[in-house]
Amino acid sequence: MHIFKKLIPVEEAQRILISYAREVKECEEVDIDNALGRVVAEDIYAGIDIPSFDRATRDGYAVIAEDTYAASERTPIKLQLRGYIKTGSYPKNILTHGEAFRIDTGASLPRGANAIVPIEYTSEENGYVIIFRRVSPWANIQWAGADIARGEIIVQRGTIITPRHIGALAGIGYPRIKVRRKPKVAVFSIGDELISVDSKLTPGKIYDINIHTLTSLIRKSGGEPVVLGIAKDSTESILKKLKEGLEVADIIISSGGSSVGQSDFIRAAVEELGAEILFHGVMSKPGKPVLGSRIGDKLYIGLPGNPASAILSFILYVKPVISKMLGIKPTHRTPGGLVLKRREYGVKGRRLYKTIAIKRRNSDYVYESLPASSESISTLSKADAYFIIPEDTEFIDSGIAVNLSFFDAQPQLAGIFIVGEYSPSILRSIISIIGDKYLVRYIRRDYEATLLAVEEEVADIAIFTKEVKNSIRLTRKIALAGDASRGDIVTAMRNIEGERIIVVGSHQSAILRYLNGLAEAVIAPKELLDLYGVEEYRIIGQEPLYIYASRDLSEIIRNVLKNLSNL
Amino acid sequence: MHIFKKLIPVEEAQRILISYAREVKECEEVDIDNALGRVVAEDIYAGIDIPSFDRATRDGYAVIAEDTYAASERTPIKLQLRGYIKTGSYPKNILTHGEAFRIDTGASLPRGANAIVPIEYTSEENGYVIIFRRVSPWANIQWAGADIARGEIIVQRGTIITPRHIGALAGIGYPRIKVRRKPKVAVFSIGDELISVDSKLTPGKIYDINIHTLTSLIRKSGGEPVVLGIAKDSTESILKKLKEGLEVADIIISSGGSSVGQSDFIRAAVEELGAEILFHGVMSKPGKPVLGSRIGDKLYIGLPGNPASAILSFILYVKPVISKMLGIKPTHRTPGGLVLKRREYGVKGRRLYKTIAIKRRNSDYVYESLPASSESISTLSKADAYFIIPEDTEFIDSGIAVNLSFFDAQPQLAGIFIVGEYSPSILRSIISIIGDKYLVRYIRRDYEATLLAVEEEVADIAIFTKEVKNSIRLTRKIALAGDASRGDIVTAMRNIEGERIIVVGSHQSAILRYLNGLAEAVIAPKELLDLYGVEEYRIIGQEPLYIYASRDLSEIIRNVLKNLSNL
Repeated sequence: MHIFKKLIPVEEAQRILISYAREVKECEEVDIDNALGRVVAEDIYAGIDIPSFDRATRDGYAVIAEDTYAASERTPIKLQLRGYIKTGSYPKNILTHGEAFRIDTGASLPRGANAIVPIEYTSEENGYVIIFRRVSPWANIQWAGADIARGEIIVQRGTIITPRHIGALAGIGYPRIKVRRKPKVAVFSIGDELISVDSKLTPGKIYDINIHTLTSLIRKSGGEPVVLGIAKDSTESILKKLKEGLEVADIIISSGGSSVGQSDFIRAAVEELGAEILFHGVMSKPGKPVLGSRIGDKLYIGLPGNPASAILSFILYVKPVISKMLGIKPTHRTPGGLVLKRREYGVKGRRLYKTIAIKRRNSDYVYESLPASSESISTLSKADAYFIIPEDTEFIDSGIAVNLSFFDAQPQLAGIFIVGEYSPSILRSIISIIGDKYLVRYIRRDYEATLLAVEEEVADIAIFTKEVKNSIRLTRKIALAGDASRGDIVTAMRNIEGERIIVVGSHQSAILRYLNGLAEAVIAPKELLDLYGVEEYRIIGQEPLYIYASRDLSEIIRNVLKNLSNL
Repeated sequence: MHIFKKLIPVEEAQRILISYAREVKECEEVDIDNALGRVVAEDIYAGIDIPSFDRATRDGYAVIAEDTYAASERTPIKLQLRGYIKTGSYPKNILTHGEAFRIDTGASLPRGANAIVPIEYTSEENGYVIIFRRVSPWANIQWAGADIARGEIIVQRGTIITPRHIGALAGIGYPRIKVRRKPKVAVFSIGDELISVDSKLTPGKIYDINIHTLTSLIRKSGGEPVVLGIAKDSTESILKKLKEGLEVADIIISSGGSSVGQSDFIRAAVEELGAEILFHGVMSKPGKPVLGSRIGDKLYIGLPGNPASAILSFILYVKPVISKMLGIKPTHRTPGGLVLKRREYGVKGRRLYKTIAIKRRNSDYVYESLPASSESISTLSKADAYFIIPEDTEFIDSGIAVNLSFFDAQPQLAGIFIVGEYSPSILRSIISIIGDKYLVRYIRRDYEATLLAVEEEVADIAIFTKEVKNSIRLTRKIALAGDASRGDIVTAMRNIEGERIIVVGSHQSAILRYLNGLAEAVIAPKELLDLYGVEEYRIIGQEPLYIYASRDLSEIIRNVLKNLSNL
C-alpha cells in the first residue's frame, strides 16, 4: 500500500521541474512608476550622459583656475562678475581671464571656465568677486558622462525592478519599459473536508487555508494567481479543475489529496489527461507527498495539504519554476557583514554612508566601493548596500568586518564585475554574450584603481589604456570631428596638446561641447563619436586598449574580442 | 554664508521626527486576499480550535487501543469493520470493543475510538481488518485545539501581513480584517533644472529622478504617494506645492532645493505657512541638507536633491515616520545563522525542515522549536524561519551554528515569548497590557519543555500547572457541565478518574465532544467553558497555575495577575 514508490532528493525534484518550465515569451510595456517588482525583458542602455553637461558640484563662482593661483586669505584676488548661472540654464557666453560667473550647485559650467571656487572662500563687492583661496583646474566640476556615460548598461534583462532602478531609468529619460508578462498560475485545493473561509464551520470540516496562502505566495513570487477553488475527493472533480487550469493558466498547482485514497483520484485525473508523471514523493519532511507532472507542455505540481508543508513545498518547488518562467536572474540571501579589503576613511563630524557593489564569488562575497560623491546616480543602478563609518572614526582598517545595510531584502547581486576604461562597444559585446547567464556591473575606474581591482580579484574583466600583464591588446581609432581651423578643439585625451586644444575631464564632455556649439571641433574615440551620431569625422590615430579577463572568462572574452579587433 | 547653523546627529533627527509623527487612526476593512503587506489594526484571537475535532494523522483504522495489545506480526488480531470515515464527515456512531473503522488522514475520530492503527500494519478480509502491530492509546491522533486553541492570539495589531498570516486567518475563518489606512505622503521635487521624464532633454536640464524613486519608496514603506510634480526655484512655487500637500496628505516630503539660494526659497515658504523648523542639517554624508519641520500638526521633510542622498535620507528619516504613522511593530534584519542550544535529530532518508520562532534578546537572537508535526498550522502564525537537517545526518549537536532561511525578508520577530500551559484569560490580559510595545508569541509546551525554556532564558513568561521556583501562584476553577448522571463524562484532566470518565488529550477536545453531543458531560477549567459559551456548569474544584516572569517583566506581570486572582 505504499504510494510513494521512489522518493527522490529535493535538488532532483527542483532540477526536473525547472528543466521543464517554459519561459514566458510575451512582454508588456509599463510605466516605470508601475514597474516595482516586475522583471525587465530588455537590456536597457543609457541613451544620454549623466550629467549631460559639465556640472558645478558646489555653490560658488565659475573661474579660470589659473586666475586664482595668487589668491590667499591675505592676498585675495578680484574678478569681474559677468552674471549668475542658475540651475536649468545653459550659458553660451564665453568667460575670459579676469572674469567670473556666480553659479549654483547643479548648474552648467560656462564656456571658458575650468573650475568652481566655493562660495565660502569669496565675497561680493561692487560687481566684483573677491577670492580668498586658489583652486586647481577641474575643481568642483562633475564632467559630462562622469556618472553614467551614454551607452552604459542601466538595467539588464532578468532584473527585478527596485526603486533604485526606477530612479536610474528616470535619470536616462526612459519612462516606459518592457517587462515580462506575469505567468498565470492556476491554484486549487483538494478535499471533501474543506470549506471556504466565509462559510460556517461544521463538525468534521476545516477552512481551506492553502488557497489563500498559495494565492499570496504566487503574487509575491511574481505570478498572477488564477483561483479555481476547492475540488472534491473525486477523479471527476479534480479533472474538471485541471481542465479549467489548462485552459487559462501557464502552470497549475494544487494542494491536498495526499492520503492513499485521494492520491488515486489525482493520479487517475492526470492520467486521463495523458500526463507524464515526473516524480511523486520527495525525500523531505515536511513536504514528502509532492507530485511533479507534465500535461502537454504545461507543468502541474501537486503540493501536500498540510498548510505548513504546502508553504514550504511552494518555496522549494513552485517559486523557482515561476522565477525560471520570468527569466529572473538569481537573487541572494543578504550576507550579514563584509570584511574590508582596504582602509576606509571617515568624514569628520559626519556619519559617512559608503555605498558598494557586491558580487558573489563562490560561497563568499567581494565588493567594490562606488564613487563617494553624493551627486552620483550610479549609486541608484549599481549599489547593492552601504556601510557606515561613524562620526568619531578617522578610518576603519582593512581586515575589519563592517555591517552591511542592503537596499533590497533579496538583492540580485552581480555575477561579473567589469572595471576600468569605458568602451561601449566592448561592454555591449560582452553583455550580448554572457548577459543571459550573468548580471553584469560595469564600474568606471582609473588605471591604478583598475589594477588594484584585478590584483584583489574583484574585477572579472578589466579594461586599461596602458599595458598590463596577461591582457589582450586591441586598438581603437581616434577621430577628429568639426572644423579644426575655425576655433577651439576640445578633447579628453591628455596626450594631445596644442594652443587651441582644450582638455576636459571626459570624452562625453568634449563631444557634448562640440555638439552644443561650445567648441568648433572635437577629438575622441571613433566608437564614441558613432554613439553620439556624429557622422563626419576623420581618423587621426589610434590608442591601445588592454583587456584582462579572469581565467574562467578568458576563453569567452577572447571570442568576444576577436570580432572587435577593429574598434 | 553657512546655512546649516547647527548640524544634529542622525539619531536625534530621527527621534525628533518620530516624536512628532501622528499615528493614523482610521482603519479600513480588507479581504485577507488583499491584505498582503498591510498593517493589522486589531488583535485577532482564534474564535475556533484547530483542529476543531479529534483528527486522524494517518491513513488507517480507528480502534480501541486496548483491543490491539495482543497484536504482532505473528499473532495478528481481527476486528470487525464497521465502516469508512472519510475526511469531511463527522461520525456519530459509537465504536465498541472488537470493532474498527477505516479512516483517512484528516478525518474525525469516531466516538469510542482512542487510537489509529496505520494502514501499513493491516490488511482487510471479508468485513474484518487484520492488525499486525499494537498501538498505544492516543496514537496518531491530533486532539482538538492541539494546534491552535480557541482564544489564542493569531495576529497582533501592528503586524505586517505575510502569506503565513493570511493562512492563519483563513484557518480560523476570518475572511476580512481591519487594517490601518495608508498614510498619504505628498511628494514634490524642487529645481528649475528639472524636467519630467517624458520630456525632451535640453542642455542644462536633467530628468527629475527623485519623484519616481520617492514615489516607489513611499509605496514600499506602506504609504500612499500623492505626486505633486516639480516646483520651480521660487518661494511662490514651493508654497503652492506645500499648500496642495497640506490639503490632501498626512505628511509632505520634497527633494532638492538645497543650494544656498534655493534653500532660502524653502525657508521663506515654510515660514509663510507658520511652520516650526525642527532641524536643518544632519551630521551625515550623504544626506546633510535634510530639513525637518512641522506645519500645523503635519510634518514636512525636505530631502537633498542628489538622487542617492534622497534615497538614503528617505530610508533614514521618512520610512521610520511612515512606520510610526502605521503603528508597525519593529522589523529586523535577518540574522544569518543561529547556534543550536540543544541537539536536533534528523529523519532517516529525508531532509528535515525544522521551523522555529525567533526572538531578539538584546543584540542576540534566541529561538524555540515549533512542533515538528507537519499538520501544524501554528507554523503559519508563529514560525519565523527554518533550518535544514540533511538526509544523511543523524543529528546536529548543540553549539553548532545552522543557517537559517527566513519566511520574510524583513521579519517581525517577537519581543516576548510566553511558553507553557494554555490559559486564554492570562494570555489576553498580558497582551492587553504589553501588546502595544511587544510582539508576543505564545508557544504551548508541556511541563518539562516549559521548564527548559525558562532555564535557557528563552521564555519571558511561563505558565505551569506544577509549582516552580520564583513563580506567582494563581488558582483557576474547574467546572462540570452537562448531566453527569446520564452517560459519558469527558475531560482532559489526568487526575480525575472514574468508570464513565473518558480522558482525552486536550480541554478543547473534551468541550467540543460535549458540545457536539458525543458525551453527556464535561469537566474543564471554568475559563475555557466560558470561552466556548457553555452557560450552565457547577464549580467542582480548582487547580493551581504558577506564573513565572523574567526579571524585567515581573513587576508588570504581578500587576496583570492581581486582577486575575479569581480565574
